[in-house]
Amino acid sequence: MKKAIYYHAGCPVCVAAEQQVVDAIDKNRFEIEIVHLGEHKARIAEAEQAGIVSVPALSLDGAIFHINFEASIADVKGIA
Amino acid sequence: MKKAIYYHAGCPVCVAAEQQVVDAIDKNRFEIEIVHLGEHKARIAEAEQAGIVSVPALSLDGAIFHINFEASIADVKGIA
Repeated sequence: MKKAIYYHAGCPVCVAAEQQVVDAIDKNRFEIEIVHLGEHKARIAEAEQAGIVSVPALSLDGAIFHINFEASIADVKGIA
Repeated sequence: MKKAIYYHAGCPVCVAAEQQVVDAIDKNRFEIEIVHLGEHKARIAEAEQAGIVSVPALSLDGAIFHINFEASIADVKGIA
């Protein structure tokens, strides 16, 4: 099973993107985790190490895709 | 069947993203089309009307998601 992680910060743009992008992923092949970085500050470091510089972002087996743009990780640290 | 369209311009970043993002989409629910805007100039207008401002970008049933950033549509027009 591959792993998909969707990182967001709870903003309206992030949630709308989450519903559509996460919905499109093949659940038979991907285990999907949703991480709200504003509520889980401890995972910000993990996101940064993975190469995430803004949210929302999607990790597909470790490959990072920044989807649209709502906030930088620096912004998330400020609001977290 | 929902429709997913992946717009790109043939750049290495676009192709790498294509392989991973398109691979993750559930083919049982989405019909997937790949559009190389550099080779299909006639579809640039369609992409712009859909709201695409840069590539690579993914349309999921009309909702546009800009994935990472390789080139603006203006750049694509220049190289197309």
